[in-house]
Amino acid sequence: MTHDQLVQQIRQKQSFLCIGLDVDLDKVPTHLLQKPDPIFAFNKAIIDATHHLCVAYKPNMAFYEAYGLKGWQALEKTINYLNTHYPDVFTIADAKRGDIGNTSKMYAKAFFEDLGFDSITVAPYMGRDSVEPFLEFKDKHTILLALTSNAGAFDFQTQQVKDSQLYQQVIATSTTWTNSKQLMYVVGATKAEFFADIRRLIPEAFLLVPGVGAQGGQLEDVCRYGMTKDIGLLVNSSRGIIYASSGKDFALAAADQALALQRQMKALLSSSE
Amino acid sequence: MTHDQLVQQIRQKQSFLCIGLDVDLDKVPTHLLQKPDPIFAFNKAIIDATHHLCVAYKPNMAFYEAYGLKGWQALEKTINYLNTHYPDVFTIADAKRGDIGNTSKMYAKAFFEDLGFDSITVAPYMGRDSVEPFLEFKDKHTILLALTSNAGAFDFQTQQVKDSQLYQQVIATSTTWTNSKQLMYVVGATKAEFFADIRRLIPEAFLLVPGVGAQGGQLEDVCRYGMTKDIGLLVNSSRGIIYASSGKDFALAAADQALALQRQMKALLSSSE
Repeated sequence: MTHDQLVQQIRQKQSFLCIGLDVDLDKVPTHLLQKPDPIFAFNKAIIDATHHLCVAYKPNMAFYEAYGLKGWQALEKTINYLNTHYPDVFTIADAKRGDIGNTSKMYAKAFFEDLGFDSITVAPYMGRDSVEPFLEFKDKHTILLALTSNAGAFDFQTQQVKDSQLYQQVIATSTTWTNSKQLMYVVGATKAEFFADIRRLIPEAFLLVPGVGAQGGQLEDVCRYGMTKDIGLLVNSSRGIIYASSGKDFALAAADQALALQRQMKALLSSSE
Repeated sequence: MTHDQLVQQIRQKQSFLCIGLDVDLDKVPTHLLQKPDPIFAFNKAIIDATHHLCVAYKPNMAFYEAYGLKGWQALEKTINYLNTHYPDVFTIADAKRGDIGNTSKMYAKAFFEDLGFDSITVAPYMGRDSVEPFLEFKDKHTILLALTSNAGAFDFQTQQVKDSQLYQQVIATSTTWTNSKQLMYVVGATKAEFFADIRRLIPEAFLLVPGVGAQGGQLEDVCRYGMTKDIGLLVNSSRGIIYASSGKDFALAAADQALALQRQMKALLSSSE
């Protein structure tokens, strides 16, 4: 998917919502556990109920790997279902990968070519040659961890390096890499005051913003400091949406939560025009 | 596996060799491609031929994920084979994971409990709460990326942070985390001169050292600066061993390469006593 197609989808749906498909079998409605593939059954129901309210889905790989072969199978079915039935939706493999060059190349092949994701999250610690193999894939996007939404973000990411903080250094350095236009960045919503600094470094790149909902954080602040003329934001909610109800109405309840966020987004998009 | 069991194995085998099982189907002998599971067939042959010469095996997850379901199946068969037939061998899931707390917990469950690995490599960028969930598992080890062996290591890891470099800060900070005794560290052999500094911070922790062989680097230097009274080193070689021959003699050729390294290690262990 191209940058322009993503922007167009956001304008059409009046939403920049991303839904995190982090399926934990201890939390899905118990009636699904009888199904041959409860993880996929859950995802399919959530997707069918919410696809018109969001522009992206983000399965986190940990939740699939935790179920071994069955998990991997459910992941394949989920991404195939999205690519077949809702090809306009942006897909994010939340994998936080990153390794030496030839290994990153294998990950890129796995997620972009074989599974067919539009994007993948990548950790920056190993530097340029661990990220550039992902950037070689045309119309695919690499979402670099910059400032994450967890408490541990302050252990290293905000340490002072030269005249800036590490996460700023990561962003600034990454803009010099080959095909850096295909980079997006993870920036936690728990730190909206950082968005202004980040926009000085990358005025146009898309930011994937976790931490709205279950992790706290303010949608309005994020937009005030982070929105660009092409919106430039994907705001993620996982648990707040997909576990809105543990009953048979779980998909409907998820759609309600997604609608509430989409309405807020629509209002924020109008007021920014 | 406990620290003491690992040390005992090293003394028995007179080896601190780790073999990287990074199986690329473009590189395995062509006669294996007819087998129902060529990846596992390759691994099994390599393991059977080398298990007495090494103390650890390290499959890199990227190479398995690149083959989707079949890759994951081959990974499960490989770790099961190791745990069943060679339970004294230390196993490393080279996964370079790391995510917010509840997600890291899922990864830890997947690799330690379900797959049954002794250890996993983890990236430090997201800080304390992304690593501690791995450290909760008794007799399991978390191998933190400190100073990697690739060119990109100099992008961020060696940046000056306060009065030390980022990788030193990562090491020093990590020693304050809960159950930090279960930490090991990845330190590239391409930078043996750094080992002395690292040993001042962590005099006893095991270091996993990639970069001997295909990536260059010197075994003697690594030992001179990195070896402890309990050895404290696992030196990895992947491509130099497993792709020593592309013919039917591939396992024998791998054993020859492993033997050559084991003999060097034996000599270095004797001279250090």
